[in-house]
Amino acid sequence: MTETKGQSEDIDIPANQKVEKLLKTNLNKKFAEKAEALKPVLHEWVDHPLSIIEFEPSPEAFFKCKAVQKHSIEDLPNLSYGKGDQVILDFGSHRVGYFSFHLDADGVNVDAPARLRLTFGEIPYDVTENLHPCKTWISTSWLPDEIINVDWLPTDLEMPRRYSFRYLKIEVLDTSPKYKVKFSDVRVRVVSAISPEVNVAVTPLSTADDELKVLDSVGQLTLRNCMQTVFEDGPRRDRRLWLGDLRLQALTNYCTFKNFQLAKRCLYLFAALPREDQSLPACLFEKPKLSPASDYIVDYDALFGPTLYDYAVASGDLETAEELWPTVLGSMKKALSHLNKDGKFDSNASDAWKFLDWSDGLDTNAGMHGVVLYCCKEVNKLAALISRPSPYTDAIEKMTKAASSFYNPSLKVFVSGPENQVSWVSQAWMSLAGAMDSSICLEAIKTAMNDHKAIKPLTPYAYHHVAEALARSGGEEYCLKLMKEYWGGMARAGADTFWECFDAEDSRRSPYGDCHNNSYCHAWSCTPSYLLRVMLKDYLDKQGLR
Amino acid sequence: MTETKGQSEDIDIPANQKVEKLLKTNLNKKFAEKAEALKPVLHEWVDHPLSIIEFEPSPEAFFKCKAVQKHSIEDLPNLSYGKGDQVILDFGSHRVGYFSFHLDADGVNVDAPARLRLTFGEIPYDVTENLHPCKTWISTSWLPDEIINVDWLPTDLEMPRRYSFRYLKIEVLDTSPKYKVKFSDVRVRVVSAISPEVNVAVTPLSTADDELKVLDSVGQLTLRNCMQTVFEDGPRRDRRLWLGDLRLQALTNYCTFKNFQLAKRCLYLFAALPREDQSLPACLFEKPKLSPASDYIVDYDALFGPTLYDYAVASGDLETAEELWPTVLGSMKKALSHLNKDGKFDSNASDAWKFLDWSDGLDTNAGMHGVVLYCCKEVNKLAALISRPSPYTDAIEKMTKAASSFYNPSLKVFVSGPENQVSWVSQAWMSLAGAMDSSICLEAIKTAMNDHKAIKPLTPYAYHHVAEALARSGGEEYCLKLMKEYWGGMARAGADTFWECFDAEDSRRSPYGDCHNNSYCHAWSCTPSYLLRVMLKDYLDKQGLR
Repeated sequence: MTETKGQSEDIDIPANQKVEKLLKTNLNKKFAEKAEALKPVLHEWVDHPLSIIEFEPSPEAFFKCKAVQKHSIEDLPNLSYGKGDQVILDFGSHRVGYFSFHLDADGVNVDAPARLRLTFGEIPYDVTENLHPCKTWISTSWLPDEIINVDWLPTDLEMPRRYSFRYLKIEVLDTSPKYKVKFSDVRVRVVSAISPEVNVAVTPLSTADDELKVLDSVGQLTLRNCMQTVFEDGPRRDRRLWLGDLRLQALTNYCTFKNFQLAKRCLYLFAALPREDQSLPACLFEKPKLSPASDYIVDYDALFGPTLYDYAVASGDLETAEELWPTVLGSMKKALSHLNKDGKFDSNASDAWKFLDWSDGLDTNAGMHGVVLYCCKEVNKLAALISRPSPYTDAIEKMTKAASSFYNPSLKVFVSGPENQVSWVSQAWMSLAGAMDSSICLEAIKTAMNDHKAIKPLTPYAYHHVAEALARSGGEEYCLKLMKEYWGGMARAGADTFWECFDAEDSRRSPYGDCHNNSYCHAWSCTPSYLLRVMLKDYLDKQGLR
Repeated sequence: MTETKGQSEDIDIPANQKVEKLLKTNLNKKFAEKAEALKPVLHEWVDHPLSIIEFEPSPEAFFKCKAVQKHSIEDLPNLSYGKGDQVILDFGSHRVGYFSFHLDADGVNVDAPARLRLTFGEIPYDVTENLHPCKTWISTSWLPDEIINVDWLPTDLEMPRRYSFRYLKIEVLDTSPKYKVKFSDVRVRVVSAISPEVNVAVTPLSTADDELKVLDSVGQLTLRNCMQTVFEDGPRRDRRLWLGDLRLQALTNYCTFKNFQLAKRCLYLFAALPREDQSLPACLFEKPKLSPASDYIVDYDALFGPTLYDYAVASGDLETAEELWPTVLGSMKKALSHLNKDGKFDSNASDAWKFLDWSDGLDTNAGMHGVVLYCCKEVNKLAALISRPSPYTDAIEKMTKAASSFYNPSLKVFVSGPENQVSWVSQAWMSLAGAMDSSICLEAIKTAMNDHKAIKPLTPYAYHHVAEALARSGGEEYCLKLMKEYWGGMARAGADTFWECFDAEDSRRSPYGDCHNNSYCHAWSCTPSYLLRVMLKDYLDKQGLR
């Protein structure tokens, strides 16, 4: 997830109002303290660049260029760079951490400061193009470049901010006619809640299909690099904990790194920040102090219960499930308030944001009906797990009945809104909710996917729900096909970590107007590991693929 | 002084050569250690901005604009600045030090970093114009702007580098649609070898002429702000100790702050770095370790002796004079090697740089003859002071005789070079050297000054020598007139500290191609205090002006 277009444009910032005043939240101190106590000490290790590269045009490549080695990395300390020169270092794969280097001078005198621009690139475009000006409606402060002025050389330089990158471009804006600069001891102090040992210790996906192995390992790296003191959505942007993203990260974590503590911490963080109406914020900030974002998303709110249920099942920690049970009940209220008397979800019942995906023009009625029905069922399971009465049995009955009013038997798909819109996402959530028989659901998904007029997903978040819905409805082979096409497409395009958004036809596609502001290590795209290891486990076994 | 055009263009930087290898210097460790022991602990104090301003067009003003208050400084913490906004703070006068502030947010969420550009301005142009691109042949790394990215707000920010400024412009490059930024606790931790108490304790110039009081106080502030761990040429650019500049700073220091320790330290620093031929570098670097610049200037080298003599007389410290006596003898060699058999200085005798001034097309033969004759005489006086035989009696006799060959009796000026060039600087140095009777010298200076075809000085360094020569030749009233015109012109143009160069007719005049790279607190222009307090003391007394 990331910043909210619809929301941010509406915001009128009153002068001199403290952030806290605007957010009617009641901090639950006890939960905040529990979350704080669960905060991980990050693992740290040092990595170095592997080569000095440049990019050559390559029309057939996704990013229209390919990296070629310009110098061996061993040569770096001997290379001098003057005004107008640049060097691109390749760290071999995606890293999240703190950058430092030794800056030396080559010449007769260091008689002026050195001015350098450092650009930390996740993809080639970050270092092959000018980042400014950036035509984006979100903040250009996210762009990963820094200009530094260094008075005295030689010196060791430690950049204080954390960066997320594979490539580093250093441009020498100026030195003086009397000297050039040299770089050595270039390193990144990598940070993650997951140690490299744990990372390596995860049993490799046992399959003869190399492509699946790649999807699994790229998914794991994506997840690991997002696992910091919370499950961040993207370590480059916007580095925050979002509820819907958390659910997918946690699911993937349970079948790989099994860091239950971080999942528990994140659940308590949200539970610490209920809004006045007991709904939960869509995301939250850890720094400089724990606080909720003003963003609110109905579907994210309702997904808190399923996220807690997944945690309880995976960890066996029923105590947390019991303690957060009242939070779950509160988090369902806003979503349920959108049901009409017949139990049909009506997106127009409030102005609150229904997300589902970034795809343009998506009608959310059917998809949201599916989400809420799914959440009711998951929360009822959670109730059973901790021996509470099932709160949503009536709602489930009504909503299941109402779901048929979204179904068009002649088209064999779920339709949404006054225009009877067909979208992949509507089918996915109706299927995940078990709104109708799985064979009907599978047919609905396949029908939508074969309808070129149907609204396609834009984000891996939505693709995940389509893929999981296929797998859960008996369409495992279609799930696998979709994964190879979509996440496989990213991998073939050169992804070291999976991206915030991907369009195989357009390497510049962005939800924000300019792909330079995209995040290319984005948590909600880490799920291939979960899909392969959990959803498709039996299928792969049967196919002799694992 | 500052970077050297002629030199820097000739430099060919061999790859992978350490700076030290190129400079054939023999570090005198004993002298270096003495200098280190004399290093002052800088005084520090805190200053705050006095107002929030903007600049309005003002065609009659030197910089074509005038500052008007936009807000009271008390309002600052309540003002919010969003993307594209800027604020200019006025600290009331020139400051050298470390900048810090508190950065707060105003809005619903700090959901993106804040990206700010800070520009530290010595003059209005620094903050009213774009500094980039800068058409200059010296390093653009000197330009006083920084771009910073701040992840977490609110926060205290301390800028690590030292700045030299009166105005600070903060531009908000971006925040996010959800918040603006606010500034409070804005401060500069001012540094100088001179404490504010000493600064205040200097007896004010006792005169009824307010203009002279201003020249004295601006001169003192210029000097104080350049007095750091060495006498810097300019605290903004290039922050180094230059020998010719040191001489003028030290002279002004002896009649104001009387910090003999810093002068002694600087003499030992130069003495620690003799070149292979016993000449001294034109300037040197303290950081990251003591080292000589590759710049060499014949006149600066020879002026070491007079600088030591001034120090010995002012401080009474004959021990230092004795210890550095061999250095003095070494420092005269290169200059004397330019004399032909008749004792006439020949600039073409070597390629070594003869500076005198930045004025275009200046022929240096006559001026250098004057400088070297002056140095011989001063060094002979130093010899007498420490009871040594006078080393340059013969040279003085020969050079005095040869001086007449530069004199054109019909034009009544000293002429220089094959074109018989007339310049103010030639007259000044011939007069300071006492090359002919003072009445002849005075007439020569006045004649050149009245000749619109004569080469005029560009820098305050050269103007100083003209002014001092007038005063020493019985032309005190002309000296005073020149001071009121030249330094007074800077003061009337709004100078808080005197500048590196000044042309009353052209506010954009620069030796470097772009005035944005000029230094507007430049040590070699601090001498009005010396001229008024020492050179013109008796004259002002007689005139009833003090």
